[in-house]
Amino acid sequence: MPNEQFIYLGDTARVPYGNKSPTAILHYSIENVSFLMDQKIKLLVVACHTVCTYALPNLQKYFPIPIVGVIDPGFNTLVKATKNFQIALLGTANTIKSGAYQRLLLKYHPDVKIHTIACPLFVPLIEEGFSDHLMVDLAAYEYLHTLKKTTIDAALLACTHYPLIYESIKKTLPPSIKLIDPAESCAECVLSVLKRNNLISNRTKAPKHKFFTTDSPEKFQRLAEKFLGFKPYHVELKPV
Amino acid sequence: MPNEQFIYLGDTARVPYGNKSPTAILHYSIENVSFLMDQKIKLLVVACHTVCTYALPNLQKYFPIPIVGVIDPGFNTLVKATKNFQIALLGTANTIKSGAYQRLLLKYHPDVKIHTIACPLFVPLIEEGFSDHLMVDLAAYEYLHTLKKTTIDAALLACTHYPLIYESIKKTLPPSIKLIDPAESCAECVLSVLKRNNLISNRTKAPKHKFFTTDSPEKFQRLAEKFLGFKPYHVELKPV
Repeated sequence: MPNEQFIYLGDTARVPYGNKSPTAILHYSIENVSFLMDQKIKLLVVACHTVCTYALPNLQKYFPIPIVGVIDPGFNTLVKATKNFQIALLGTANTIKSGAYQRLLLKYHPDVKIHTIACPLFVPLIEEGFSDHLMVDLAAYEYLHTLKKTTIDAALLACTHYPLIYESIKKTLPPSIKLIDPAESCAECVLSVLKRNNLISNRTKAPKHKFFTTDSPEKFQRLAEKFLGFKPYHVELKPV
Repeated sequence: MPNEQFIYLGDTARVPYGNKSPTAILHYSIENVSFLMDQKIKLLVVACHTVCTYALPNLQKYFPIPIVGVIDPGFNTLVKATKNFQIALLGTANTIKSGAYQRLLLKYHPDVKIHTIACPLFVPLIEEGFSDHLMVDLAAYEYLHTLKKTTIDAALLACTHYPLIYESIKKTLPPSIKLIDPAESCAECVLSVLKRNNLISNRTKAPKHKFFTTDSPEKFQRLAEKFLGFKPYHVELKPV
């Protein structure tokens, strides 16, 4: 969707959300979405697994625009990819420990056998700028090499950071395991929701995107190039 | 001091202290020391750099037993080790960013030129059980290889975890840099304080040590063997 304008808000002052109460998560999420509504957005992507787990239905009820999460699209792709319904979930220690993600998957797809793998070093390695470093390959090996002994045939990246090290993870897994990047599934879902609601932009060239963070725009500027593939030009502090 | 009995309290429920306010740090520290006083300790080691930075003088004022920190003994060894007073401080991102450690060193030794190096991956690597893994060598190289181009002649481990990866750090540094482990300096200080106060135990064999944590004794049990060199037999939850 190269002609759509993106307004991005990263609540960097209050991350990680993973160790906060569901009430706090909902409260912060409403605050964040209200700010984006003031920016006149036409569709919202909740690009955080924790917020999707605990607050998505409420946000969809409160705000009058289409809201797409990252979890459901990933689940749909995962369930289409597996043949024997034996799948692996890769996530942070908090995500895996909370069990909420697993419960959500089982609610919609009760036949799935879930093998969870906590990969606590992936996020610090990525956030410290080592996505392309041998350390990531070594960590991936430590966390994932035992999957070779299983009959699992699909694995889902249950953390927003992990697509950045997709290749390292992919090459560690046996070729029999399909690796699902929920960000891709989410983008496909956004496109179809825009079409269905006649919301596709009629711009003919790429617009200027806007980026807001609640803490340290400088750190975001430094890291964002890796996430975005281009240098963000407009990064602004939105204090909380 | 193999005949001294150790009563250990790890406030695992509330770590890391590094991002808490000085008031919260003092409050938690008083709570923790009061618990240890109830266990009839004769000397206290505050084995946390953050608590030493923000609360040590107050704790020494409030409690009527000798209290030894980890910072001053390390500083003393460091200042004895350097010839040109150009030294490096290795710490977590929070420790380095706060600047408190540097201010403390400059207060007592205003002539020292300090080169700070934040090594944010060391703690997660150690806590995830990878102390002896190639990943640590690679991280050490990334953080420390530029020291080869300097005239620094001493470096201090300004984090309680780092002595566990002393060898990896040591072999990354040029031989001209003396690497100071403040835990060793602290142990020497404890011995001399015990002697000076006639507090040396007259036991003739090793006693049973006791370990308390404020969260997840199981995780402590798993990790502690690496720190201690033996399996802790008595680990108890002390709720906060």
